[in-house]
Amino acid sequence: MFRTDERRLDQWERRVEWPLTCLAALFLAAYAWQVLDDRSTPGLHGVLEAVLRAVWLVFAVDYAVRLKPAVDKRRFFTAHLFDLVAVLLPAVRVLRLLTVLKLLNRRFAGRVRQRIGVYVAGVTVLVGACASLAVLDAERHHPDATITTFGDAAWWTLTTISTVGYGDRYPVTWEGRLVAALLMVGGIALLGVITGTTASWLVERLSGVEGSVAEAERATLAELRPVKAELAALRAELEHRPGV
Amino acid sequence: MFRTDERRLDQWERRVEWPLTCLAALFLAAYAWQVLDDRSTPGLHGVLEAVLRAVWLVFAVDYAVRLKPAVDKRRFFTAHLFDLVAVLLPAVRVLRLLTVLKLLNRRFAGRVRQRIGVYVAGVTVLVGACASLAVLDAERHHPDATITTFGDAAWWTLTTISTVGYGDRYPVTWEGRLVAALLMVGGIALLGVITGTTASWLVERLSGVEGSVAEAERATLAELRPVKAELAALRAELEHRPGV
Amino acid sequence: MFRTDERRLDQWERRVEWPLTCLAALFLAAYAWQVLDDRSTPGLHGVLEAVLRAVWLVFAVDYAVRLKPAVDKRRFFTAHLFDLVAVLLPAVRVLRLLTVLKLLNRRFAGRVRQRIGVYVAGVTVLVGACASLAVLDAERHHPDATITTFGDAAWWTLTTISTVGYGDRYPVTWEGRLVAALLMVGGIALLGVITGTTASWLVERLSGVEGSVAEAERATLAELRPVKAELAALRAELEHRPGV
Amino acid sequence: MFRTDERRLDQWERRVEWPLTCLAALFLAAYAWQVLDDRSTPGLHGVLEAVLRAVWLVFAVDYAVRLKPAVDKRRFFTAHLFDLVAVLLPAVRVLRLLTVLKLLNRRFAGRVRQRIGVYVAGVTVLVGACASLAVLDAERHHPDATITTFGDAAWWTLTTISTVGYGDRYPVTWEGRLVAALLMVGGIALLGVITGTTASWLVERLSGVEGSVAEAERATLAELRPVKAELAALRAELEHRPGV
Repeated sequence: MFRTDERRLDQWERRVEWPLTCLAALFLAAYAWQVLDDRSTPGLHGVLEAVLRAVWLVFAVDYAVRLKPAVDKRRFFTAHLFDLVAVLLPAVRVLRLLTVLKLLNRRFAGRVRQRIGVYVAGVTVLVGACASLAVLDAERHHPDATITTFGDAAWWTLTTISTVGYGDRYPVTWEGRLVAALLMVGGIALLGVITGTTASWLVERLSGVEGSVAEAERATLAELRPVKAELAALRAELEHRPGV
Repeated sequence: MFRTDERRLDQWERRVEWPLTCLAALFLAAYAWQVLDDRSTPGLHGVLEAVLRAVWLVFAVDYAVRLKPAVDKRRFFTAHLFDLVAVLLPAVRVLRLLTVLKLLNRRFAGRVRQRIGVYVAGVTVLVGACASLAVLDAERHHPDATITTFGDAAWWTLTTISTVGYGDRYPVTWEGRLVAALLMVGGIALLGVITGTTASWLVERLSGVEGSVAEAERATLAELRPVKAELAALRAELEHRPGV
Repeated sequence: MFRTDERRLDQWERRVEWPLTCLAALFLAAYAWQVLDDRSTPGLHGVLEAVLRAVWLVFAVDYAVRLKPAVDKRRFFTAHLFDLVAVLLPAVRVLRLLTVLKLLNRRFAGRVRQRIGVYVAGVTVLVGACASLAVLDAERHHPDATITTFGDAAWWTLTTISTVGYGDRYPVTWEGRLVAALLMVGGIALLGVITGTTASWLVERLSGVEGSVAEAERATLAELRPVKAELAALRAELEHRPGV
Repeated sequence: MFRTDERRLDQWERRVEWPLTCLAALFLAAYAWQVLDDRSTPGLHGVLEAVLRAVWLVFAVDYAVRLKPAVDKRRFFTAHLFDLVAVLLPAVRVLRLLTVLKLLNRRFAGRVRQRIGVYVAGVTVLVGACASLAVLDAERHHPDATITTFGDAAWWTLTTISTVGYGDRYPVTWEGRLVAALLMVGGIALLGVITGTTASWLVERLSGVEGSVAEAERATLAELRPVKAELAALRAELEHRPGV
């Protein structure tokens, strides 16, 4: 019975994967429209708000549907933590778009570093876009704000995630600073992953560990083979001697 | 006799571990109260000051108690350098709270990278909280200060430890700059540990050193086994030949 | 027939390598002159513009000449992506100057880390020079610009690529910010490569993987050799026994 | 004859090592005095200038003395590049003080990571002190200067080498910016070395490459030993059979 539930869950996840990704794209589009079009009529604003809430509802329903048949609820929580965060935090939902990267993944199967590169680039662009929108939304109407257009917001995002931080633009509201905190953590992680990938590539290429091991092993095998041949010859000789 | 002292020291350390951690939490709370509540009455201020001094005294006594039975004083100094710093520097005492992380440690036993992650996160949060309080304490009453509320101080701590450094807030007193120096060293170390952990994970996953070695060794063993079997057969044949 | 085309392409590439590098140097010189000499007469300006366009034309023709005989057009695109970018983006053309580094490469053959160092230094200097010129070109005539001389531009480039970012100078036009974006990506990559190279060197020097493997293998071989000798002796004995 | 020269050179280097280090300390002290004591009398200024020039002369003479007996001048240039830079650039001379670290080196013999840590800390402190003095010397009398006291200079050095870069203080003269450029390169290198050391330590501790190799090898050896024993037994049997 457990197995059936597990399989049904798998089927469900595969079936809703692409629709949910499209919904995430819709969410990003609606959110961007809402933030960027500051002079939208109340009617349009209501439509966009409805779209955002509907997407949220779909994500919440999907989470509930998948939670219900799960046998070990606690394991489900830890394994699907990202999904829970996506339900609770609107902006995270957009990261669902990374599913699109699975198409690229198929091309880079086996080449782990290329896949890491594609994911890092994808996450950086998506997080950057969302952070720009969120910080613009938070700062725009503050009297002391230095970030008042999307161009400013994108520029600020760039200077923050690269840890350059000129200081010509910076958030002054606490929502904006929260976005900044997430971006900085992202920037540090970004540096870590880029450096780590480079280092691992260099270690592999330069230290020649694999090469030297393979060579040493080949030497051992080369020594072993004549031993085997010798033994076989010895045995053959013993067997075919008539007088023994 | 040495053994008895060593064992007594061990027992002492295990017994005082949790009380000292609680005292560290009390210290952090009293220090935070003193710094944040700027308009506290002289009476309350006196109480908080007394608490801070009492905690300091307990830590000093604990150090003295442990130093006394130590046979090799010099080895004790190098092994318990952190404890000495904790006695001399009030803010470091708070890092005792990291003992709480030992609970998590038990869950991640053997998974070194997760433990490093937990420690790095714990140290960063605690150091950040203490640095925010300390810089606020130092800057607040300076005429040119840009850091005058706890929100400002926390934001400044974040921009500093991530090495972004917008420059919208920065310390102007020498105490504040000392806090900044410690934070920057911490920020660089943080980057180093995050990058290093990522790199080591990637090296392990991608270079496949272990895998290739294991495989090569398995090949060698596979070659060795028939040699052994052949030898055994040869011996058996020789032994059972009647005429030889 | 394919082979002939491939060989012809190879010959072409080897023949045009140095002339194209010289053209890239000419391009850099003409571009620098155009940007730095702000009060040039219209006549001189026209000459420099003509030089820049002529160089562009040569690069485009070279690309077309090499694309034509290529059998697998798609593979050509991915393999010569840099050349296409060099045709479309003027500034990239200057990186052709890195061909000069091939001279150094010959000296460091086999020493991968030195070659990486030379390339990183070369790319950093060339990218820095081009970025300084490009940002000066973009910012100079903007009313709010803080970058108005080549000295300012070079100083800004340095603070950006090192991710220090004081904020005393920063671009305000979108062209200038695009240059900044490329520089920041470059700065992060630079950090990654430097760190990675250091890490790989340390891993190689300190972990002693190669050494331990080689030693272990030597021990195995030392054990194998007497086995072989024993077998040879055994066989010799069996063969030379008259009575058997 | 070559050998004699080489040995004499070695003797010379060992004999002048400590005197030159003392001279470097004297140089740093005189330079610091000259920069910090802005209102020194012309007489004192003349004495300090004479000391700086005398130290320079001694370093130049030492270089010449060592260059003369060198058989392969070109190899001498590349091997003693640092000494030539130390003669040409006054500030570099101070790095001679790192010789003091050799005392620590003896304690950490074999522990490469501790030695790297000690060197990095030593270089950082010395470079930071010299950069603070040099930038103060360069900026102090400029009308737009933001760095006018040694405290400001030290604070600026700290924000620069950690790549935080608040922008509350920054150099405006080209000499100050040159110092900044060297500091930034140093800051990037510092990050690289710290990260690399952490990564290498983690790789060694976590990937367990050495351990797994040793274990696999032990398994192979365990298989080999009975083969050897078997062969010895076989031979013994054949030899002691009377009738064969």
